[in-house]
Amino acid sequence: MEYNSKGSANYLKLIKRLANDHKTEALRGLLKDLDSIEIAGSFLQLKLKHQLTILGLLEKSKLLEVMRHMKEHEPLLEEIVKKLNYKKLGDIIEDMDKDDAVDVISMLTDEKAHRVLEELPKEDRDKITHLLQYDKESAGGIMDPVVVYIKKGLSVEQATNKIKAFVQAHEVEEFYVIYIVDEYGHLVGNISLTQLFLADKTTLIREIMDPDVIAVNVDVDQEKVARLAREYDLVTVPVIDKHLKLVGRITSDDIMDVLEDEHQEDLGQIAGTGHEDVLETSVFKASKLRLPWLLLGLVGGALAAYVMSGYESAISELPQVAYFIPVIVALGGNIAIQSSSLVVRGLATGEIRTVDLFKRTWKEIRVSMLNGVICAILLGLLAWWITGLYIMGITSGGALLIVVLLAALVGTAVPILLVRMQLDPAIATGPFITTTNDILGIIIYLAITFSVLSAF
Amino acid sequence: MEYNSKGSANYLKLIKRLANDHKTEALRGLLKDLDSIEIAGSFLQLKLKHQLTILGLLEKSKLLEVMRHMKEHEPLLEEIVKKLNYKKLGDIIEDMDKDDAVDVISMLTDEKAHRVLEELPKEDRDKITHLLQYDKESAGGIMDPVVVYIKKGLSVEQATNKIKAFVQAHEVEEFYVIYIVDEYGHLVGNISLTQLFLADKTTLIREIMDPDVIAVNVDVDQEKVARLAREYDLVTVPVIDKHLKLVGRITSDDIMDVLEDEHQEDLGQIAGTGHEDVLETSVFKASKLRLPWLLLGLVGGALAAYVMSGYESAISELPQVAYFIPVIVALGGNIAIQSSSLVVRGLATGEIRTVDLFKRTWKEIRVSMLNGVICAILLGLLAWWITGLYIMGITSGGALLIVVLLAALVGTAVPILLVRMQLDPAIATGPFITTTNDILGIIIYLAITFSVLSAF
Repeated sequence: MEYNSKGSANYLKLIKRLANDHKTEALRGLLKDLDSIEIAGSFLQLKLKHQLTILGLLEKSKLLEVMRHMKEHEPLLEEIVKKLNYKKLGDIIEDMDKDDAVDVISMLTDEKAHRVLEELPKEDRDKITHLLQYDKESAGGIMDPVVVYIKKGLSVEQATNKIKAFVQAHEVEEFYVIYIVDEYGHLVGNISLTQLFLADKTTLIREIMDPDVIAVNVDVDQEKVARLAREYDLVTVPVIDKHLKLVGRITSDDIMDVLEDEHQEDLGQIAGTGHEDVLETSVFKASKLRLPWLLLGLVGGALAAYVMSGYESAISELPQVAYFIPVIVALGGNIAIQSSSLVVRGLATGEIRTVDLFKRTWKEIRVSMLNGVICAILLGLLAWWITGLYIMGITSGGALLIVVLLAALVGTAVPILLVRMQLDPAIATGPFITTTNDILGIIIYLAITFSVLSAF
Repeated sequence: MEYNSKGSANYLKLIKRLANDHKTEALRGLLKDLDSIEIAGSFLQLKLKHQLTILGLLEKSKLLEVMRHMKEHEPLLEEIVKKLNYKKLGDIIEDMDKDDAVDVISMLTDEKAHRVLEELPKEDRDKITHLLQYDKESAGGIMDPVVVYIKKGLSVEQATNKIKAFVQAHEVEEFYVIYIVDEYGHLVGNISLTQLFLADKTTLIREIMDPDVIAVNVDVDQEKVARLAREYDLVTVPVIDKHLKLVGRITSDDIMDVLEDEHQEDLGQIAGTGHEDVLETSVFKASKLRLPWLLLGLVGGALAAYVMSGYESAISELPQVAYFIPVIVALGGNIAIQSSSLVVRGLATGEIRTVDLFKRTWKEIRVSMLNGVICAILLGLLAWWITGLYIMGITSGGALLIVVLLAALVGTAVPILLVRMQLDPAIATGPFITTTNDILGIIIYLAITFSVLSAF
């Protein structure tokens, strides 16, 4: 009953052995005793062959639950879905929530998707085809089109009966909010199930509903939906079309998945892994997603080498200057990432607005320069100590201060300017910003150092 | 009605003007017309003085809502809370949900917290004091101790009446799940409000309840609670004490806040900003949080400089070797971050287990080496072209391959080993891993290059 992450690991070995030894009936029995999340969890550790065996042994309702839990491990689900034949897929998809069905169908090739759709009853097929038109990361793409609503003007008792009939007809499992529409299907209010449950039978819905219902348009980006749900503490977000008609709902479990997706996306940007999933098993796909960031680093490195080649004889004469290039580059990069990651984050949550460019830049400069002064003094002493030349201490420390100032400026201004240009500020975190700073840092450091040294 | 992020910005100027001109009554009127989220949002752009004026003008129920929305902007809320006197705070806190009240109280100095608690009725004071003992990031620290439960053995009708009475007595606003306890208060099952709503009056709760209720102990870390809620698609997570007694619930809005907190924490690790909040206004606090990562970079840079100083005459003779240090360092760092960020992420979500060390390392090595070979060839050609020495191409490309291999190894193995040693793997993302790779990269590159070159 209590959460125990180690529990399912014990059964994993047994599942593997039974699957390997083709002990089908024992396996079927064991699967009945395990809950669907344990089975889905075990899939992470099983070979595809065994995964398919297990899927074949599950009862349909459990199979559906297992597949729903596997949504969080998309590459795994995709691999399995691709191996299932279209008859089996059609059979499964028919009983899925429509939003999940759409996710599964969009994993297939066009041809297979078409064949699977052919297997479905016309009504389901039409609904899913309709949903497939929305962008996968929009409100329309993640919504469930089955949403509990009532017409306005009913009493609590009438509404209760209508809702019970609706829920039975549409096989709705859970709902927390009831939406109220006018005669044209326009969303005009909502009432939580709690309020309905607590209300007197004879009360009119109109009197207790909240007319200030918050809704999103089908085209709204999923990140905005999640932000809205979080800001307003919503368990369900209603979705409306351009005519303001209620067309679906997004539930809290989907919103949590969106938060997780966006989280992964942010980390992928800053770490340079793009959309790579933790479970990605194809070496080529993973390489392809990561390569652009490395090539960016390579271009930056090429420019750095080119800049340095201009100082060939100077470096040859005073090789000590080269010693401090790595630390100048590293600190400049760190400071730029510190500023940019906070700014990008704040822009995403709305806590920083693009009009705050100067205010924000000023804060980042002060923070960075305070740390910059500390680091510059330490670097200066270090350079003096290692090279024995006090002038190396002064030039490296001085150059670091300028590099830090520039890093804070770039790290703060670039994301804000990107948003103003309607671009995604997240590209300014990670490798992009560090590469820019690497080159700037080297140019500034070498220019300052050698011009000061040549003056002596 | 529809979500419009620009709407509130229009009122911001008006709020500012009215506050500046002391047009108290006009401001009071305007605040009545704005909803609480718009007011909370405007706070991000207002001076503390005006924020306090506005709080003074709000009706209590709206004040509570505004403060609830400000939870997402913690430093802002903290600043305001510190300025309110204890009488006013006591008055507000008395009407807050207990979990929010605890958050506010823990922002105060011990002395002020004590005085505020004295203002509260004994019952509230005891409850809050009890909650304050839990770690802020544990289930106990984020739970609401008011949770709707019924004893087992009731019919649906009896249960409905009990629940209505409970809800009225405890002023519960929303609830989605009803928990069932035995005579000792042990959690034995749950039923969703939906199911209760749909059930026949005469049915026994025992027959329709789900006995496999998932609960967390008060001590469980909030990240685990969020992961569990997401895996099992829960809207509410019940909390039990060590005697398995039901003691609270965690709602989906709090879980979303936890997901966001953990997200910020991850980004803070990888970007080297620690726990700094986007809204942090103190330059000293921000500097202090960021400095350790910079000092780490400085130490790394010092070691790199020390290593290079050992090659003084060699660099002087062949300064071209120094040109490629930045690119070797940058690519090694990028690749290590790519591997480590995916591994740390997978460990956090449970998609990678620590026993997978070899399997995972093998995947990362293949992915990194594939990209490493491409980058090594490009770097080799580049080095040849810039220096005119084909041997520089071979040594720099060859050294890069070894650096990449090592980066993949370090990036994969370090986080996994940290978890095995019961440490937080997230410290192995960002500056820590890049610094390690900087030094390793420079040592390897210089050693290989100069030993090959001296052999010719």
